[in-house]
Amino acid sequence: MENDSLSLAEIVRRVNAKAAEYCALSDRIWATPELAFEEHRSVAEHIAMLRDEGFSITTNIGGIATAFVADYGTDGPIIGILGEYDALAGLDQVSGVTEHKPKTKGAPGHGCGHNLLGAGSALAAVALKDALAAEGITGRVRYYGCPAEEAGGGKTFMARAGAFDDLDVAFCWHPAVLNQVVAKSDSAAIGVRFRFRGRASHAAMSPQLGRSALDAVELMNVGVNYMREHMPLDARVHYAVTNPGGDAPNVVQAYAESVYSVRSAHLQDAEILLDRVKKIAEGAAMMTETSVTAEIVGGCSNLLLNKALQGVLYENMRRLGPPAFDDADLAFAKELRKAALTQDDVLVSVAPDSLSLKDKVLHDGLTAMPEREESEPSSTDVGDVSWIVPTAQCQTACFAIGTPLHTWQLVTQGNLPAAHKGMVLAAKALAATAADCLRNPDIITRAKAELNERKGGQSYRCPIPMEVTPSDLRAKTT
Amino acid sequence: MENDSLSLAEIVRRVNAKAAEYCALSDRIWATPELAFEEHRSVAEHIAMLRDEGFSITTNIGGIATAFVADYGTDGPIIGILGEYDALAGLDQVSGVTEHKPKTKGAPGHGCGHNLLGAGSALAAVALKDALAAEGITGRVRYYGCPAEEAGGGKTFMARAGAFDDLDVAFCWHPAVLNQVVAKSDSAAIGVRFRFRGRASHAAMSPQLGRSALDAVELMNVGVNYMREHMPLDARVHYAVTNPGGDAPNVVQAYAESVYSVRSAHLQDAEILLDRVKKIAEGAAMMTETSVTAEIVGGCSNLLLNKALQGVLYENMRRLGPPAFDDADLAFAKELRKAALTQDDVLVSVAPDSLSLKDKVLHDGLTAMPEREESEPSSTDVGDVSWIVPTAQCQTACFAIGTPLHTWQLVTQGNLPAAHKGMVLAAKALAATAADCLRNPDIITRAKAELNERKGGQSYRCPIPMEVTPSDLRAKTT
Amino acid sequence: MENDSLSLAEIVRRVNAKAAEYCALSDRIWATPELAFEEHRSVAEHIAMLRDEGFSITTNIGGIATAFVADYGTDGPIIGILGEYDALAGLDQVSGVTEHKPKTKGAPGHGCGHNLLGAGSALAAVALKDALAAEGITGRVRYYGCPAEEAGGGKTFMARAGAFDDLDVAFCWHPAVLNQVVAKSDSAAIGVRFRFRGRASHAAMSPQLGRSALDAVELMNVGVNYMREHMPLDARVHYAVTNPGGDAPNVVQAYAESVYSVRSAHLQDAEILLDRVKKIAEGAAMMTETSVTAEIVGGCSNLLLNKALQGVLYENMRRLGPPAFDDADLAFAKELRKAALTQDDVLVSVAPDSLSLKDKVLHDGLTAMPEREESEPSSTDVGDVSWIVPTAQCQTACFAIGTPLHTWQLVTQGNLPAAHKGMVLAAKALAATAADCLRNPDIITRAKAELNERKGGQSYRCPIPMEVTPSDLRAKTT
Amino acid sequence: MENDSLSLAEIVRRVNAKAAEYCALSDRIWATPELAFEEHRSVAEHIAMLRDEGFSITTNIGGIATAFVADYGTDGPIIGILGEYDALAGLDQVSGVTEHKPKTKGAPGHGCGHNLLGAGSALAAVALKDALAAEGITGRVRYYGCPAEEAGGGKTFMARAGAFDDLDVAFCWHPAVLNQVVAKSDSAAIGVRFRFRGRASHAAMSPQLGRSALDAVELMNVGVNYMREHMPLDARVHYAVTNPGGDAPNVVQAYAESVYSVRSAHLQDAEILLDRVKKIAEGAAMMTETSVTAEIVGGCSNLLLNKALQGVLYENMRRLGPPAFDDADLAFAKELRKAALTQDDVLVSVAPDSLSLKDKVLHDGLTAMPEREESEPSSTDVGDVSWIVPTAQCQTACFAIGTPLHTWQLVTQGNLPAAHKGMVLAAKALAATAADCLRNPDIITRAKAELNERKGGQSYRCPIPMEVTPSDLRAKTT
Repeated sequence: MENDSLSLAEIVRRVNAKAAEYCALSDRIWATPELAFEEHRSVAEHIAMLRDEGFSITTNIGGIATAFVADYGTDGPIIGILGEYDALAGLDQVSGVTEHKPKTKGAPGHGCGHNLLGAGSALAAVALKDALAAEGITGRVRYYGCPAEEAGGGKTFMARAGAFDDLDVAFCWHPAVLNQVVAKSDSAAIGVRFRFRGRASHAAMSPQLGRSALDAVELMNVGVNYMREHMPLDARVHYAVTNPGGDAPNVVQAYAESVYSVRSAHLQDAEILLDRVKKIAEGAAMMTETSVTAEIVGGCSNLLLNKALQGVLYENMRRLGPPAFDDADLAFAKELRKAALTQDDVLVSVAPDSLSLKDKVLHDGLTAMPEREESEPSSTDVGDVSWIVPTAQCQTACFAIGTPLHTWQLVTQGNLPAAHKGMVLAAKALAATAADCLRNPDIITRAKAELNERKGGQSYRCPIPMEVTPSDLRAKTT
Repeated sequence: MENDSLSLAEIVRRVNAKAAEYCALSDRIWATPELAFEEHRSVAEHIAMLRDEGFSITTNIGGIATAFVADYGTDGPIIGILGEYDALAGLDQVSGVTEHKPKTKGAPGHGCGHNLLGAGSALAAVALKDALAAEGITGRVRYYGCPAEEAGGGKTFMARAGAFDDLDVAFCWHPAVLNQVVAKSDSAAIGVRFRFRGRASHAAMSPQLGRSALDAVELMNVGVNYMREHMPLDARVHYAVTNPGGDAPNVVQAYAESVYSVRSAHLQDAEILLDRVKKIAEGAAMMTETSVTAEIVGGCSNLLLNKALQGVLYENMRRLGPPAFDDADLAFAKELRKAALTQDDVLVSVAPDSLSLKDKVLHDGLTAMPEREESEPSSTDVGDVSWIVPTAQCQTACFAIGTPLHTWQLVTQGNLPAAHKGMVLAAKALAATAADCLRNPDIITRAKAELNERKGGQSYRCPIPMEVTPSDLRAKTT
Repeated sequence: MENDSLSLAEIVRRVNAKAAEYCALSDRIWATPELAFEEHRSVAEHIAMLRDEGFSITTNIGGIATAFVADYGTDGPIIGILGEYDALAGLDQVSGVTEHKPKTKGAPGHGCGHNLLGAGSALAAVALKDALAAEGITGRVRYYGCPAEEAGGGKTFMARAGAFDDLDVAFCWHPAVLNQVVAKSDSAAIGVRFRFRGRASHAAMSPQLGRSALDAVELMNVGVNYMREHMPLDARVHYAVTNPGGDAPNVVQAYAESVYSVRSAHLQDAEILLDRVKKIAEGAAMMTETSVTAEIVGGCSNLLLNKALQGVLYENMRRLGPPAFDDADLAFAKELRKAALTQDDVLVSVAPDSLSLKDKVLHDGLTAMPEREESEPSSTDVGDVSWIVPTAQCQTACFAIGTPLHTWQLVTQGNLPAAHKGMVLAAKALAATAADCLRNPDIITRAKAELNERKGGQSYRCPIPMEVTPSDLRAKTT
Repeated sequence: MENDSLSLAEIVRRVNAKAAEYCALSDRIWATPELAFEEHRSVAEHIAMLRDEGFSITTNIGGIATAFVADYGTDGPIIGILGEYDALAGLDQVSGVTEHKPKTKGAPGHGCGHNLLGAGSALAAVALKDALAAEGITGRVRYYGCPAEEAGGGKTFMARAGAFDDLDVAFCWHPAVLNQVVAKSDSAAIGVRFRFRGRASHAAMSPQLGRSALDAVELMNVGVNYMREHMPLDARVHYAVTNPGGDAPNVVQAYAESVYSVRSAHLQDAEILLDRVKKIAEGAAMMTETSVTAEIVGGCSNLLLNKALQGVLYENMRRLGPPAFDDADLAFAKELRKAALTQDDVLVSVAPDSLSLKDKVLHDGLTAMPEREESEPSSTDVGDVSWIVPTAQCQTACFAIGTPLHTWQLVTQGNLPAAHKGMVLAAKALAATAADCLRNPDIITRAKAELNERKGGQSYRCPIPMEVTPSDLRAKTT
């Protein structure tokens, strides 16, 4: 069966055939970064290409304007391949340089490489479709256009709306510094917006009449920083002050708000911690004679791993080998490390399992599967998908070792040849693993059994309450 | 001499003649509120009318695009009449209602009544010009178009540029809830922007690598709030967080900034206090392993009173009597108090010298001159003018008793008939007092002698360093 | 009547006769400083001398072991003369030196000069008694031995117990840097102990299980420091952490407490502010998942002045003249100022009404009565007496100008000749004014009428609830 | 060789023979708890018994009055057995009850079971000596009387003084809730005292002249709580406020201090973190215009495990079996859990490796050796010993599962039969393992080789600077 249309060699051939086209898509997305839930141009670019490839498009999934699915095939198991395309605020950066250099101060940038993620997944879906189409093989491919991974969790809303309910397996990937199968859990996370309302007054003439909502925001933050010592070690709490109440020091701030993110290895623990954070908010309101409301603005479940799928994915990556970085790729990575990455950056990016890679600048191997399953403090809305359908993910080396996520250092590499190579590798790995599932349905059976076991009798429960809509998340302040 | 062109009766007649025209100007300014240093339309409106009246216009005073002077006359003492027209952020509000109701959320509004201030002063200047012109009286009138009173101190920059150096006396007024001559000093104030720079990192994955500039901003604020107990009682410190470092809780904030305002009855004491605030900023940077810079973004000197001028101004106000509020004016003021003003608001607005007015809704008298000179914690860039030229100011009742400055409650009254009446009264009082100075030059002589005495041997020293320009103040963040 | 036994000259003669004896009493009290409610030796010393003078002694007033009265006479108006004798923690200091030099680290010291206060008042009472006894004049003298002025307010408890109810007039004094009649009000004050209870845990092994009561104490303090900006300007809030929860950093603190003092010009305003402080305490408990209780541990009413009595007292001080300081007194004061007092100390001690004295080291005049009555942020339990009986107080120059209260700089002067001279002057002024009241009962009549007016229809209301006893105030922690 | 004098059976027999005597010693130490460096009576009790057993005593080790060694034997390898006897402040508690019930409020208590630790180790040393003596076996036994484990690290000072340099192997144990060999590293820790000095002033009358050292302590704590988010995950920082500056709210606190404990898995990392904490202290001083000094008051190195010794110790524990708890032991443990231990307490005490024990109240097995070596956030001055000589430790079940260290719940069990049983088991395990080392010198050879390897080329470096003496640690405040 090695030479059939679903073989690794055939998949590689088909991916290569359209790689340039989808690298160009990735570069266009990189050049027009759009924030969460506002990815209109990015979605249009993806839809145009997938429609041309013969996929049928359904938009407005879960009521979200920038969520869509692209379906191919009418029969057989449904393979889901997940893409993303949202950017991050304030990370605008010129490409291919080794210093912080925004084009437009304060503009967004692709600080998490989602330009590659969306285009790479699309390339995988298209290559798989081409393979199915060539031989008339039974099986369906569905590309998920998933918005707002960074803020709010687009997939969580899509999961809540049932968008993954009929899937058989799901695949995703993320651009990274290492080539590896994702074999660590991600944490559950909940995002909450706290709105404090006080009373304005002239800060010099009559401060005694004012009740400062900014004071409340600050006191809440102080309270949470005190709580850090007394919270579970695997938990994380962090915040942004999303509205400090105006630029005028001479007005007591009548309104102010913050957004908190609370994470834990299990959704239930995150909810317990969130209750403590809410009490701190109420304490801060009480201290300042202001009032406060708390609104959930996003959330995602912890990730359930799936060893059945991971094993197949790992084997494909092993056979594919690392991206073929050339001297120019290495030279730039070296220069960037020297100019803009610290030794700590490097250690963090390879710790704890790949410390031997610390002297390399680009990953030229494949990280072995870890012996123990552990949980990472990071979160992803793929977590919600993983509670519904067996899901596997990989990462590929797109960036210099040491590049932290959410930094200009990542943005500047986002459309370079090395990034393209990593993206194409990911497309091959995902498409080949999906092909294996279609060739060998037993994989799907085992993956589903494993998911059932991991759920431990619990059903999927969406961390975002029904009354919260994506448009709530876009809305900023009163 | 009572019936000459400079008599009170004649001045009143001339102000009344053009009152409607300038009330309309005020209403147009109210309807198109512009922030400090951005008052381009407001300036254009003023210039158009003053040029039509025969004033010669000089723009770009002190290098500020929205500062101008309008001159009439070529000989004799120069009378300065100061106008303002800048609005405040976030105070947009529908007119004539008793509840908080913005037209456009977050838009600016005239929360300090500067629409009335600019138009009322222009009306005074024009009436005085008309009087001089009618009889060919020697004397000059100069209207100062002063930007950015709220943020930065436009007059301070104009003072630094020498714009008031050749004046003989200066007059100004402010819309208020009471009819009175300003007989209390204002405080000196300095504005400083603190910029903290740290290091970004993913807040869940690698918080230990981040150094949070927002942490530094918060810790500085905590430090300053601790300092409050140990600072002089007449001092004031207040702040706004002008950049909290981004909306994303999952990024350790690499940049954040705040703006502080430090006030004291004497400029020198404000500078001493500012040094303490700067030390707190440095302490916060040290605590967080971030760096900080401090830039002066505005400042004004404490106000030097001038009893010689105040006496004449008071006598004119006494003869003019209060605005003639009618039943409709009273009814709205009553309704507003009931719906949106607290007993505390009322007490603050009449304390400490006019507590007997607490049951009135609109002021129908004239506050007596206080026995003792005291200093208020408020500040004004008229302070800088008062160190250069003898200066007097009055307030007139434009708003319901109890209306706090910088609130929507004030904005909503800014173009009502009551406000117009107060504005017209102010124009009469200023024009008449200026006329008295021209009729009786001895007033000017005494006023100048008093100023010399009050300066106590010190010269005017601008609190804003030469290297700081108005455009620095407009610029926001790195 | 000038030469009768109650004349100023006779009073002076009688005070001088026993001055040395009572200066020695003061020195003994200075040398054995005792904290609030623990003044057993000090009380014994006073009682012994007053009993020898023929006073009848009643101890345990209001159930307080160190409160007593000493009565002389059986008929006529009752003159109260109030004495104090409590010291302050941690202010132990060698006498007559110009550097901080404790005898026993951490021991108490007479940082407020109450050794002079108690002995000086006793000298006044004894001299007045001698005058009455000599001529068989009708009238009664009562010395009040008042404990715990510094902590808790002994007189407030005595007032609550009715100890001042039958008095006709009351006099008190305080050692100070100026010779003057007290003509400014003191503020009301309330003391509250906050006890926080959390949960212990090992701070390294299981901090997540601990709930820190110390965290709560700190967060409450942070909250209160934020409140400072938004409280009335005449109010004061300050605190001590009376139990930080143990010395071991490796135990999460399960118990911690603080004591707050809240002051305002009127008792009612202090109570309103206290409610806000309590809310902050509850907010801090909520933030930390600890619990908190609040217990009133002291309080005193604001002082009602009495111009009728003050006038007579002032006239006597005018006739007596300042203490006769000699070269040695001046030399030490000069040296102390140079070594240990700052220019700020000096300005504060003479501001705002006696700034012209800033170049003197000892006061050689009498401060004029101020035109306006104002309120000071300091508090005294004489305030409670002043709501019950017409009360007047003076201060005399016992210490170098610039000496702050509650400092070693004051302690070191507490038994020097200059202090003795000030004390003797006070005894003369009080005794002479009391004598005038007996000679001229109309003074008492006018003083009582004035008191009625100042109370404005309110009755005396003790700020300390009945359920709080002095022994509660001595008790420290659970 | 099984039946020789060093066999397990013989060791058990000898330990049993003197068990009652040493349980009585433990109970006497429990009843007279003494704080770190003040364990004079406890030391006297130990010395008396060991001298009676024929040990020669050397006191004042490393210049510490309560450090001693007791030596037996003149030839052969030297076996060190370490004992402790210091108690904890504020943990006084009645024995054998299930509620918090101090005998004397605030008195110390044996919250860490060191009464058992010292007596149990002595019992082991005596039994081993008895075995050697019986047969004239070559080998030496040395009991180390180690003070101040809780505060300061007595063994660290002893290590600095060379007291462990000639040892061949060392053994220690700790009373606990589980039977197990210590197979996880402990962290390095450094203790630092921060002394802040400001300027006193009357907090109501002249707060503006004061500079509060308590403010500085609080701001430092706030700063450190903010740092928690940005420090390595394995690090710990905690603090006590050891002097809050006095009980009087009306005095601005001129002096205040705190003690910090900083821990990390490696001494070097703890030192880096300490530098950050010191910067925060300086920042707080800068913010408050106070000054600060930092003094090291204790420290210990991270623990180097020794698998060679641990293996032998584990085998002995396996053969010995768990303590023979009876129905009464179980009943009390059950009652205590119900009344005073939470589910969280229980989980923490068995996590992460023994979660299956969560439904037991007393441990009736032996925890298996973990597969991976990990580091605990706890610290011990045994760490310093472990850098000098191969060291092994065990824990035995003396307390109910769920009992947290440093709580009254532990104190109340400290002299119950169950605790005695655990202690006797530990004595057997240590003595038997020491006996094995003497019977089989190859164990010592392998243990020494392993130590060399673990040191990785580094030498032992004492974390406490030479200039710091134990008496510095006893001294409290200026």
